[in-house]
Amino acid sequence: MAVADWVPIREELRSHEPYGAPQLDVAVRLNTNENPYGPSESTADAMARSVAAVATELNRYPDREAMALRAALAGYLGHGLTADAVWAANGSNEVMQQILQAFGGPDRTALSYAPTYSMYPEYARNTNTRWVTGRRNDEFGIDVARATALIERERPDVVLLTSPNNPTGTALPLDAVRAIGDVAPGVVVVDEAYAEFRRDGTPTALELLADHPRLLVTRTMSKAFALAGGRVGYVAAAPEIIDALRVVRLPYHLSAVTQAVARVALDHADEPLARVDELRETRDKLAAQLNELGLDVAESDANFILFGTFADRHAVWQGLLEHGVLIRETGPEGWLRVSVGTRDETQAFYHALREVLGK
Amino acid sequence: MAVADWVPIREELRSHEPYGAPQLDVAVRLNTNENPYGPSESTADAMARSVAAVATELNRYPDREAMALRAALAGYLGHGLTADAVWAANGSNEVMQQILQAFGGPDRTALSYAPTYSMYPEYARNTNTRWVTGRRNDEFGIDVARATALIERERPDVVLLTSPNNPTGTALPLDAVRAIGDVAPGVVVVDEAYAEFRRDGTPTALELLADHPRLLVTRTMSKAFALAGGRVGYVAAAPEIIDALRVVRLPYHLSAVTQAVARVALDHADEPLARVDELRETRDKLAAQLNELGLDVAESDANFILFGTFADRHAVWQGLLEHGVLIRETGPEGWLRVSVGTRDETQAFYHALREVLGK
Repeated sequence: MAVADWVPIREELRSHEPYGAPQLDVAVRLNTNENPYGPSESTADAMARSVAAVATELNRYPDREAMALRAALAGYLGHGLTADAVWAANGSNEVMQQILQAFGGPDRTALSYAPTYSMYPEYARNTNTRWVTGRRNDEFGIDVARATALIERERPDVVLLTSPNNPTGTALPLDAVRAIGDVAPGVVVVDEAYAEFRRDGTPTALELLADHPRLLVTRTMSKAFALAGGRVGYVAAAPEIIDALRVVRLPYHLSAVTQAVARVALDHADEPLARVDELRETRDKLAAQLNELGLDVAESDANFILFGTFADRHAVWQGLLEHGVLIRETGPEGWLRVSVGTRDETQAFYHALREVLGK
Repeated sequence: MAVADWVPIREELRSHEPYGAPQLDVAVRLNTNENPYGPSESTADAMARSVAAVATELNRYPDREAMALRAALAGYLGHGLTADAVWAANGSNEVMQQILQAFGGPDRTALSYAPTYSMYPEYARNTNTRWVTGRRNDEFGIDVARATALIERERPDVVLLTSPNNPTGTALPLDAVRAIGDVAPGVVVVDEAYAEFRRDGTPTALELLADHPRLLVTRTMSKAFALAGGRVGYVAAAPEIIDALRVVRLPYHLSAVTQAVARVALDHADEPLARVDELRETRDKLAAQLNELGLDVAESDANFILFGTFADRHAVWQGLLEHGVLIRETGPEGWLRVSVGTRDETQAFYHALREVLGK
């Protein structure tokens, strides 16, 4: 469905659909990498109390700089970070749009390595940034020699790495980030939306911030923090880089309510983070089960698994849906992505898949 | 303070300051056109309950389309509007950015008539839209013949009108909007952020929507609804125009919490709207008082008054600050803008001004 002919939208946008996974009302929703566990009743009560506390002053504009929230996020991240080295916005997609408004834009180039998150080209399109795609290798990792050669050829203003990568789950070794940072002429962004789910021994690019001033590490509260509905993404970087984002941010972009709810979620972080261990175990068990079915399974450090390959992946997706299980038809041709749910949801998916595949 | 030399921000942004009025902790804050009355305790409780109700499901992404909120906003606006003819975002500044992303952008032009809202050029800058400014007349109105001549010369893709205009308070006759709409080759946006404060007999451009498919009317919950801290702006337009905004919106841009709180505010609209009459009376009384002081006072249909003129307006602003009253040093040279507060705040301003002026 294109935008109507008479509407004077930019021509390159006319044929585009609004982005978003199909949202269907089914019993087992494993399609958008949500955390299956919502905030507890006691956390919900604390959120409500925090909103009651700010509500009678909602006639006033919020703290434009969201300093208390940024300080709390810095405290959570550790690595010696302080509030002026952290920035927050309405979801990491707003953070990413701000990054491309400041460092990308017309006559500038952003580069990433596919297969990767399907929203990135839309951020580039919305900010009129030229978009270049390199390729990941057959294991969905990044070959450093080829990656740096591409950077030297394209001279991108923004390199967008993703670790763990969506939709493949692949984490990136820090040596690769270092090597790319060494040749990249502009900023390097490591999107760590799924960082909390990484396996033991997998590092975070936060470790590199002190020595890499043009590095940005983005995070989100949507996944491990179970706050997808609260819309809070954030980024850690040098304070001078954060200053650049402050130039392009819309004033008062983060509501007083969002700031209050996010702070409560951070105060109650123990609760969702305790669930992360369970979700990692569930993931690893599912990966083993899918391997036993003889499927290809991408190594995952995230809360989802990419598996395949199928001559007709849509038929498999549809078959699962008919069993009340919604997963995502995304990623390279022939592959499917399933989010890790509760133990029961995940096993419901596994059993449905066996029936669909006749195994 | 420019962004640091080593930061690879776009060069045209390097010397920019983050936008925002100075925020100072003084007794009487009449600088950002906030509503002086916050939501009541009972509305605050209802907001808290609504957040408690959604909080345990914040692990799920919100309704991307915000249909219930859009339906409620359409119901409030009336004029036969339905949910598909209304769009909402995090403040009318996000709405405006989406409008310029869809209808402006590189190689496109937006046009407005100054003096007007100082954020508009920043929206244009952030979306790489060429920005052209016409002039308002000496009464801060728009001369239709000159305005349409400028449109025919510049062929803007977006014409941005503001009624009541900020910072002058000037409402625009519908005949002017019609005449501009007849010659504008692209979309015409009427920013009605302050519409609820207009004087009896001043019309709204909502009346024109049915006959003007390329017209957009933006509103906000920040002013009359006393929800500046909640960040909800919205726009009414043809559903086909709304579809264009949906292409460029970031997915899940409006949090479940924002949607819930805004719906409560709409359910309790009687309360802030009853205050609007008082604020209009306070404004009209203040305008009369300022006139009696021999000052120039712009006719205002908004919740603020532009007054002057002063050889050294900064000295007057500073003098008021020393009396504990913060207003805004904005608008044409020599003028100052004061928001309408409570009766007491407004009279505190008036008496402070008399002292500062020695009258």
